Amino acid sequence: MTIISGLRTADIRFPTSTQLDGSDAMNPDPDYSAAYVVVQCDDGSEGYGFTFTTGPGNDVQLAATTALAPLVVGRPVDTLVEDLGGIGRVLTHEPHLRWLGPEKGIVHMAIGAVLNALWDLAARRAGKPVWRLLAELSPEALVDLVDFRYLTDALTPAEATDLLRAAQPGRAERTAHLLAHGFPAYATTPGWLGYPDDKLVRLTREAIADGFPLVKLKVGADVDDDIRRLGLAREAVGPDVLLAVDANQRWDTADAVAWMRRLAPFDPYWIEEPTSPDDILAHRAIRQQLAPVRVASGEHIHNRVMVKQFLQAGALDVLQLDAARVGGVNENVAILLLAAKFGVPVCPHAGGVGLCELVQHLAMFDYVAVAGLDDDRMVEYVDHLHEHFEDPVVIRSGRYVAPARPGFSARILDESIAAYEYPGGSAWTAIRGGA
Amino acid sequence: MTIISGLRTADIRFPTSTQLDGSDAMNPDPDYSAAYVVVQCDDGSEGYGFTFTTGPGNDVQLAATTALAPLVVGRPVDTLVEDLGGIGRVLTHEPHLRWLGPEKGIVHMAIGAVLNALWDLAARRAGKPVWRLLAELSPEALVDLVDFRYLTDALTPAEATDLLRAAQPGRAERTAHLLAHGFPAYATTPGWLGYPDDKLVRLTREAIADGFPLVKLKVGADVDDDIRRLGLAREAVGPDVLLAVDANQRWDTADAVAWMRRLAPFDPYWIEEPTSPDDILAHRAIRQQLAPVRVASGEHIHNRVMVKQFLQAGALDVLQLDAARVGGVNENVAILLLAAKFGVPVCPHAGGVGLCELVQHLAMFDYVAVAGLDDDRMVEYVDHLHEHFEDPVVIRSGRYVAPARPGFSARILDESIAAYEYPGGSAWTAIRGGA
Repeated sequence: MTIISGLRTADIRFPTSTQLDGSDAMNPDPDYSAAYVVVQCDDGSEGYGFTFTTGPGNDVQLAATTALAPLVVGRPVDTLVEDLGGIGRVLTHEPHLRWLGPEKGIVHMAIGAVLNALWDLAARRAGKPVWRLLAELSPEALVDLVDFRYLTDALTPAEATDLLRAAQPGRAERTAHLLAHGFPAYATTPGWLGYPDDKLVRLTREAIADGFPLVKLKVGADVDDDIRRLGLAREAVGPDVLLAVDANQRWDTADAVAWMRRLAPFDPYWIEEPTSPDDILAHRAIRQQLAPVRVASGEHIHNRVMVKQFLQAGALDVLQLDAARVGGVNENVAILLLAAKFGVPVCPHAGGVGLCELVQHLAMFDYVAVAGLDDDRMVEYVDHLHEHFEDPVVIRSGRYVAPARPGFSARILDESIAAYEYPGGSAWTAIRGGA
Repeated sequence: MTIISGLRTADIRFPTSTQLDGSDAMNPDPDYSAAYVVVQCDDGSEGYGFTFTTGPGNDVQLAATTALAPLVVGRPVDTLVEDLGGIGRVLTHEPHLRWLGPEKGIVHMAIGAVLNALWDLAARRAGKPVWRLLAELSPEALVDLVDFRYLTDALTPAEATDLLRAAQPGRAERTAHLLAHGFPAYATTPGWLGYPDDKLVRLTREAIADGFPLVKLKVGADVDDDIRRLGLAREAVGPDVLLAVDANQRWDTADAVAWMRRLAPFDPYWIEEPTSPDDILAHRAIRQQLAPVRVASGEHIHNRVMVKQFLQAGALDVLQLDAARVGGVNENVAILLLAAKFGVPVCPHAGGVGLCELVQHLAMFDYVAVAGLDDDRMVEYVDHLHEHFEDPVVIRSGRYVAPARPGFSARILDESIAAYEYPGGSAWTAIRGGA
């Protein structure tokens, strides 16, 4: 019998702040980082997971991850991977750590990292990528992954089962389509706030030429700059290409409405994170005042209870779930079911470190087995740091190619860990030496 | 010029789980703990603050507290204590740590602990208890403490100023009344879920005899037990005494309504935390269905943006703010202003370790300078662990006596730290030796 023998962690940080990659109105100098966790088994097999952070605090995130070890270490792997819903509930409802949330912030993200590592392990053992492992589960097995606590006023287990059963007949056809054509992506690479205008225009043109149907620009620091930058991008791509904007929580309601009315001449497709990710009622108010511009959010919506309310309140046009913010695959299955129930398209957040790698699996599972749709749906794509992963995403003609390798595409290469582990890795030593 | 020279932390845990003190439907075995922080100045003066936790994870909470040190250490004390609003915004909006919330969970509670320690320091230097320091500030100075980001759709700085100015004329009279009569308290000590029936009845009778106007019972584990326990308590006190119940987030909406209808014959005054503290819409639905039973929540409502929405949605009858869950005194000033704007009474959460000590100051400030009312308002009181504080709360005839000593009543005695620091303190060594 194989047993979970340990949780190993690594503090991995990339010095992205030196290039202004990832700069936006709220995050001027992120060092994209992973609070990385390895679930170790006594037969030598491993599963990989992480939380994405922006540098400082990555160590605190790892301390929370380590605090979960007693709940996992010593358990038999077979029973764990056969009941991932059960271990999800154990981790989420452990009362002492729950007090530090509940179901939000550092502890909840640590639970997500550990659960995602268990999913990576389960998929490796099953010899399948996570999207396929999920998409081949029965409706009943999928429903059992979900923690329905606090959800039943919007979605019951019976409704979720019916919804999944209704999507069953098309699974094989959609899997074939996915394998042949991949899943739509959109590009954020051109639009970082710190980039000069010529770089913005050049990268936007390249993204459209590469086949991406939508380019996203960061906004929210200075309205005149935003008018100029969005105008340049619109001029570069013409009237028919989709351009979205992202304020990274910068505004209050009135500011969001006033600012976006000034950007309206450039026909933005959505405004992302116009205000606090906690503010369901403000998102609803902004949506009502800005229609037909869509309102999008999700990368910081901290759990299924919040997602449920955003949907109940009619506060979102586009749900941008994140693979590493909530309680792992389990909670994202709940979130996908809620979105399907309310008919809101899911366009997952990605970028950072490895978020593209993870979240493509969830979008593909959603397409094959939950929503059954890929119209109006795309996964964010940012083109950096993929080279540090064992199974990096592949983009072809503006679409994610379906991963074939077993696992969750979550493993970071050993040589990258050696270089970027903080503070002792060779890249950090070199930076300090060269300063 | 005095400088902040360091942040010292201590992991203090009390073995309360051995007595079932603090047991409820979601927290069966808490070891009441403090993630304790000491702000040290280079002249030897200190300020004290903490986050309350239930034991495991207290070390993670301290790791987050330590991560804030670079934002505070090295600053001149005079400019800090003269602009506590400014340092509050610095701590809240530091982008890398903000990513780990934002404004929720471990990082946000750590910010609260550090800010509360700075308030303790400021009050000690001013020679006043925190409630009086706050209650003697001008409306403009109070408004400057508040971070209005994400609040302006419900409360603007101008409205807050007007509200505080309207309360100014009665400040002196209310201060005199407070000093003479104290502030109303209510008792939770009798009602822990783990207590046998005879202890429940005895402690309930004693609390009423001691002058408390309301006794609160934990519910939510077993409905038949709750009917029996609430019936015994009602029989013990007669029809005119207030009895409240607290489900500690146990239910979904339909469960809450069904369960509370079975308890209705015993005339519960409020149902506290019927469901997830994130679920604004569920609280509103429960409130609509259970009226005239009041709906109360707050100890886990994680920031001012959530409080704002609970009030905007009409989801609460009673707001139970917590001194150590949100971003310190600063954010609680915002929360008190919001409650006053919406006319919802504040009955603060307390208990745990030192929460009574802290929150009495906020309730007294609210009475003197914000809401100006003490009808329908009371502060929770639980009778354990006060002996570990330098300036413990004093209860007289069921009321909190206004603290006179300078500071925030937040300092834990050196001998208590020596005994209960985890894992090396003498009390813990003795427990392990005796096991």
